[in-house]
Amino acid sequence: MNLLVVGSIALDTVKTPFGKAEDVLGGSATFFSISASYFANVYLVGVIGEDFPDEGLEIFKRHSIDIRGIEKRKGKTFRWKGEYGYDLNWAKTIDTQLNVFKDFNPKIPEEYKNCEYVFLANIDPSLQLKVLEQIKKPKLVACDTMNFWIEGKLKELKKVLRKIDILLINDSEARELAKEHNITKAAKKILSWGPRNLVIKRGEYGALMYSDYETFAAPAYPLDSIYDPTGAGDTFAGGFMGYLANVNNFTESTLRQAIIFGSVMASFNVEEFSLNRLRNLRHAEIRDRFQEIKRLSHFDDLDQEFFNHIF
Amino acid sequence: MNLLVVGSIALDTVKTPFGKAEDVLGGSATFFSISASYFANVYLVGVIGEDFPDEGLEIFKRHSIDIRGIEKRKGKTFRWKGEYGYDLNWAKTIDTQLNVFKDFNPKIPEEYKNCEYVFLANIDPSLQLKVLEQIKKPKLVACDTMNFWIEGKLKELKKVLRKIDILLINDSEARELAKEHNITKAAKKILSWGPRNLVIKRGEYGALMYSDYETFAAPAYPLDSIYDPTGAGDTFAGGFMGYLANVNNFTESTLRQAIIFGSVMASFNVEEFSLNRLRNLRHAEIRDRFQEIKRLSHFDDLDQEFFNHIF
Repeated sequence: MNLLVVGSIALDTVKTPFGKAEDVLGGSATFFSISASYFANVYLVGVIGEDFPDEGLEIFKRHSIDIRGIEKRKGKTFRWKGEYGYDLNWAKTIDTQLNVFKDFNPKIPEEYKNCEYVFLANIDPSLQLKVLEQIKKPKLVACDTMNFWIEGKLKELKKVLRKIDILLINDSEARELAKEHNITKAAKKILSWGPRNLVIKRGEYGALMYSDYETFAAPAYPLDSIYDPTGAGDTFAGGFMGYLANVNNFTESTLRQAIIFGSVMASFNVEEFSLNRLRNLRHAEIRDRFQEIKRLSHFDDLDQEFFNHIF
Repeated sequence: MNLLVVGSIALDTVKTPFGKAEDVLGGSATFFSISASYFANVYLVGVIGEDFPDEGLEIFKRHSIDIRGIEKRKGKTFRWKGEYGYDLNWAKTIDTQLNVFKDFNPKIPEEYKNCEYVFLANIDPSLQLKVLEQIKKPKLVACDTMNFWIEGKLKELKKVLRKIDILLINDSEARELAKEHNITKAAKKILSWGPRNLVIKRGEYGALMYSDYETFAAPAYPLDSIYDPTGAGDTFAGGFMGYLANVNNFTESTLRQAIIFGSVMASFNVEEFSLNRLRNLRHAEIRDRFQEIKRLSHFDDLDQEFFNHIF
């Protein structure tokens, strides 16, 4: 199936305790689409400036991503500058230059409008609504958001929540959105506002998925070298939505596997700066890491003998 | 099999956003032994003051815990006073009065010396060593520790690590002990100092178990009402060691199930203040929650069809 993503394309400057990368490819739609491209046909909508390097577009093309939806405008590309300490769960934003992204007004190309799967990356909820108006009949719509919109555009964000199927957010954002510290209570409240599923990303602690009837807890793949966590959340979303679009159903079983693929892709992403690891993956590596997470989280059911003995 | 625990018995005063409890039963050996008593014969060594309430001893007896190892001394019982904010992962200690616990010098009763399973709760590593000298031929020894001993008695603690099989600690303590922020690297370092298994407790994020060959990631049971996290770590250890002593083997499969029982028992413990929930559990509730965690963390293997299709 075809998978549409609308979000940011950026040039990032990132410093971590393990090194520095300057003006490298970044942005939510970028990480999402490269990650999803291992599973599905991706259609990308975003905006770049005149300074965007040809090499960036080449990477999309090499991953068979449809970039007819990338608009090139006068001015500079969106730039983000951030820094991480040893606690790689938290980024400190040093500088944000919106540039051409400031007036981003996503226009969905005619050829994209029949996409069955849609991911609205973290952009202004008013724009997310505008995107949805342009799509014909999506089978599944998921979106991301952040504290900035929760604080500044809550009304519009709640309108978005009524129209989508799955919300993917960080745990601190889930708490802030629901105004509730307990994550399970927060999840129930958010589900009551519309989405059928809520995916809570918890960085090195894995992810939770809630529906009205089920809860799924997925571990993160434990890595002994994490170089750059930038884009991990969008990469997660890319693996998640890419797998759903590939399998083209959303039973509980498929959704759970999709969470694991999200975890797998995010774990690769953080192993190197920018997209350096993600752009050179082999399918066998993805499959192997899925199975490693299976082994990692497996435990045997209780023996009937033990039951009878003690219980 | 018989399970020996040596640790603190305390009277706690605890404040959380959900209420307050004054001079209630607490201490590492207390939480551990009540939790473990659902699985194994527990032999308790600890010290209490003259003010220790009879009701406290009654609870141990009702759980068939052998308390011949509890020494009653002149003076007051160990008291801890703490407070939690909405982030229930962190306790703020308001006051600690060691009282009779200050000169605790554990003497293992003759009848206890053949215990096959031993848990050294969080006490001075010098005392942990003294306990080990008194035990005849344990099959499995596990211990806990804390930042206070990591900072003040590292040499003795490392001696303990050479003599035990399993270390159970919090993730922040693991990082501090190994002087390494990455938890996987920290784990490898600690394993190189002696223990065969390292269990890292991560509160609401579950637990990790490392050995030289395997890693296991277990989720915490998601609760929508957590009233008092005091004793969760010791309750976890009680379920873990209790199950191992019951089944009397420590294959990887059994160890993983034991981690889940630790998680189960800890999840009950935090639902009410002090031991209020833990002391009134039915075995069927324990079994059911084990199976709920099984469902919570299960995902299906990949379909061969999917493999062939995409990979």
